[in-house]
Amino acid sequence: MNDTTKRQAAASEEALWRIFTIPEAPDSTLSIIEQNLSQNLAGFLNESIVAVEKPLWQIERDFQAYQIPDQPTFVSDYTESIMQKLVAHSVHTAAPSFIGHMTSALPYFVLPLSKMMVGLNQNLVKIETSKAFTPLERQVLGMMHHLVYGEREGFYKKWMHSANHSLGAFCSGGTVANITALWIARNKLFKAEGSFKGIAKEGLYRSMQHFGYQGLAIVVSERGHYSLGKAADVLGIGRESVVSVKTDTNNKVDIAEMRRVMAELQARNIKVLAIVGVAGATETGNVDPLNDLADLAEAYQCHFHVDAAWGGATLLSEKYRQVLAGIERADSVTIDAHKQMYVPMGAGMVVFKHPSAANAIEHHAEYILRKGSKDLGSQTLEGSRPGMAMLVHACLQVIGLKGYQILIDRSIEKAKYFATLISHNIDFELITEPELCILTYRYVPAQVQKAMAHGSTEQRQRLNELLNGLTKFIQKRQREEGKSFVSRTRLTPVRYDRQETIVFRVVLANPLTTEQILHDVLVEQDQLAQLDKEFYPKLRQLAADILV
Amino acid sequence: MNDTTKRQAAASEEALWRIFTIPEAPDSTLSIIEQNLSQNLAGFLNESIVAVEKPLWQIERDFQAYQIPDQPTFVSDYTESIMQKLVAHSVHTAAPSFIGHMTSALPYFVLPLSKMMVGLNQNLVKIETSKAFTPLERQVLGMMHHLVYGEREGFYKKWMHSANHSLGAFCSGGTVANITALWIARNKLFKAEGSFKGIAKEGLYRSMQHFGYQGLAIVVSERGHYSLGKAADVLGIGRESVVSVKTDTNNKVDIAEMRRVMAELQARNIKVLAIVGVAGATETGNVDPLNDLADLAEAYQCHFHVDAAWGGATLLSEKYRQVLAGIERADSVTIDAHKQMYVPMGAGMVVFKHPSAANAIEHHAEYILRKGSKDLGSQTLEGSRPGMAMLVHACLQVIGLKGYQILIDRSIEKAKYFATLISHNIDFELITEPELCILTYRYVPAQVQKAMAHGSTEQRQRLNELLNGLTKFIQKRQREEGKSFVSRTRLTPVRYDRQETIVFRVVLANPLTTEQILHDVLVEQDQLAQLDKEFYPKLRQLAADILV
Repeated sequence: MNDTTKRQAAASEEALWRIFTIPEAPDSTLSIIEQNLSQNLAGFLNESIVAVEKPLWQIERDFQAYQIPDQPTFVSDYTESIMQKLVAHSVHTAAPSFIGHMTSALPYFVLPLSKMMVGLNQNLVKIETSKAFTPLERQVLGMMHHLVYGEREGFYKKWMHSANHSLGAFCSGGTVANITALWIARNKLFKAEGSFKGIAKEGLYRSMQHFGYQGLAIVVSERGHYSLGKAADVLGIGRESVVSVKTDTNNKVDIAEMRRVMAELQARNIKVLAIVGVAGATETGNVDPLNDLADLAEAYQCHFHVDAAWGGATLLSEKYRQVLAGIERADSVTIDAHKQMYVPMGAGMVVFKHPSAANAIEHHAEYILRKGSKDLGSQTLEGSRPGMAMLVHACLQVIGLKGYQILIDRSIEKAKYFATLISHNIDFELITEPELCILTYRYVPAQVQKAMAHGSTEQRQRLNELLNGLTKFIQKRQREEGKSFVSRTRLTPVRYDRQETIVFRVVLANPLTTEQILHDVLVEQDQLAQLDKEFYPKLRQLAADILV
Repeated sequence: MNDTTKRQAAASEEALWRIFTIPEAPDSTLSIIEQNLSQNLAGFLNESIVAVEKPLWQIERDFQAYQIPDQPTFVSDYTESIMQKLVAHSVHTAAPSFIGHMTSALPYFVLPLSKMMVGLNQNLVKIETSKAFTPLERQVLGMMHHLVYGEREGFYKKWMHSANHSLGAFCSGGTVANITALWIARNKLFKAEGSFKGIAKEGLYRSMQHFGYQGLAIVVSERGHYSLGKAADVLGIGRESVVSVKTDTNNKVDIAEMRRVMAELQARNIKVLAIVGVAGATETGNVDPLNDLADLAEAYQCHFHVDAAWGGATLLSEKYRQVLAGIERADSVTIDAHKQMYVPMGAGMVVFKHPSAANAIEHHAEYILRKGSKDLGSQTLEGSRPGMAMLVHACLQVIGLKGYQILIDRSIEKAKYFATLISHNIDFELITEPELCILTYRYVPAQVQKAMAHGSTEQRQRLNELLNGLTKFIQKRQREEGKSFVSRTRLTPVRYDRQETIVFRVVLANPLTTEQILHDVLVEQDQLAQLDKEFYPKLRQLAADILV
């Protein structure tokens, strides 16, 4: 079938039938692109995505039409058009020099498998549209549960496939996973008792009246992910109830301060809904002292959630898993497979210590999710959703623990290598040491570092402001040039008197990132700094003045 | 690269590198399967999925391992294993005789495109990991907005790509879309005023205290989707706040009753958070009188949401779009592209009448979603998520309005045809007429229909109970046999004195479903009825007794 026939497709009934029954011809534009993709993904991405960034407003020009086109388009015309307008200006997230966010290169076999997944088009909300995918998803959650909690065989035999229990919930991502965990924590706290029918039925207002609390709190370090604030909003708790506890010099929660906060909240009759431990902070990669947090949660009898969306995969490494010691005491743990587990986007998970945890959010309907059914949808926030668990299942089997261990270990070692590289470069300053494979740093010319050491508080502050401008300039320019990409964030390091400090942030989880690339990133940043006509000259001038 | 090399992969570092850099060999098991899939999806599904259903407990046997395997698995071994254990026992959701749920056959081009999407692995939460995908998603939302609201060109020029505005939100599915809409409604209701900082910050408890309401309500017909109850739970409103209004004989909300309910709630100082209109009930496909609901929402100044997750696509048909008249007055509308728009699973959307609606749920973070950025993640419930909008974009262009119109029109006509078929068959009873392409019916032998007409209330009730058992038996058995699939649900039709009545439910959106298949479904159900040893004989006996 050629493209001309297809153009007639949507315009006539018989031909419409064809787009549902007759596949792309092997010599069609789309088929040829697909073959390239299969034979050489990296090559396809390198060739199809333009390196130098086009400003967003220019890209937007191609997406101005607001009416659904009346007439159908050739598949080949459409394909050519999106290659130029969409693919060419997408982000090469798999590039070894794209070290600014949590995406990575993907193992090849996930591509044909995801096509199979789409072709099967299962809907995991209920068994009637997913059948074997349901036990498969339960098994993946069981394996992740075992990775975190390491219960014995009998436990999994009893609960993994039990109709009214869940060892976890599959979600589109870590945000929904965190919301699910805190939803459960909230509903457990306000469970039915006496004439009170529980929050799920009666809502938060009646719950607060019934239990007589003055307020609620979710206690987490200042490094907690922004999704916790979102969860507090969605769940009706309110963002102000997220109590942010300061961190120590290593970006781990200050446990003494946390103890103080907990005692104070109790004294004020504010009920702590959950303590959230950060296991792999988004910005610095650090892990809270989870055992200490577990002790506190026990003492105050509150839910203990660990947000290990990014860092949880560290449990796959025998060598580094003890960094997360205490995670097995958490009531719930978020882990994203699309981060350090090399699964494509859209594979979040939350696992529950207790198989009946999700009963707190259970719901039923007449036509599906009937009581006693094994439909997964009765204990998840989402309804209809795809069979992404298949891709996690595939990676767990094909890569195996041994493979993951190598991947995780190398990422951490690479980050340590980069940290050394930065520390040894006199014009750069390491801001946060990598505990896992995230680190932050900035460009501070040697002379400016000296000036920092000698300047007055006011001068130091001014230097820092100028450095912030320069860091922002370099990061933006580097992204635009398209050779490499680091992200940026804002921290308040103790060593800069907790002043707002903009830093480069790198995530080194792509196995294809080489040491040479890391060298090159620093060389490029050094060169880009010289191009700045605003902050760089002022910085040098002020440093010179201070050092006179 | 052959499979033996790959087995060494995860066990050695150099070979691990390979699974990220060297694609499947064209003669590998996975590549061959993928080629089959590309050349003949329908054939692949027909051959790979076994027809006769295996009981779930048997399928579960293959998913018992709870430990992540230590050693890596061959890709080809893994592929063979899931073909037997997973694919063979998945559900043939694309089969023309699978008419029980909302999944359908997919147009071919979405397969290679979804592989491209996975290969690009964009993360739509922020521009830094999605670039052109961000304007593309905004365009898709703009087109859907235009489909619903039909604003003028200037409107879309101004708002479609505006940083601090959203014409809608992309979600994994209709449930998240409905939660998002009601979240916005809740936050708009409890907005900041005076010293009160708004619900997003202060939470629901303080909001209720500040505004002094006795309670909250979400008012919807008894046909409302179960996700509304879930939303009420998640949002802290409570399931009991979902006020269910009875429907008329056509399964549309009884508007007089709705008016009465609204007045009563107001008298009790219970604030209606939102009126939800059902546009395509999940169970019967009916559409509420949306203009009447819009009038009510205006009168009571509350948010008007329309759940058109399934029925929204009807707007694509010039002929039938007036069935949804009044939808353009809704503040928010849910539409799932993975239902009647033939996009694979995972493409939900909610569109907002007002471009600033989502400001009520806006959030920011330091490292992404900075203020003024066009990052989509600042106004969505989900965080990281894939570029599914690309597949909706593709279908809108390749199928076009003209194509969709034919698809929608044919589905509705097919349902009308099936309804006639059922009505003319003396052993079947049509329970709900198709307004769109969903209908319900049941098997009631002619003799039993006669008995129903003559029996006492008690006898009628008993007959109905027996019929429920028989319907359940037939539906289950038909699914197990694997030739065809209809779903079942429970209704309370007026004509059966609102007694609980189990019915077959069919959704006729698959363009490949032929009239012959519909004939065959009835023949099969008739035959299956005779196999029932429990209800069928009793039913005949009782009918005979009544008719003596």
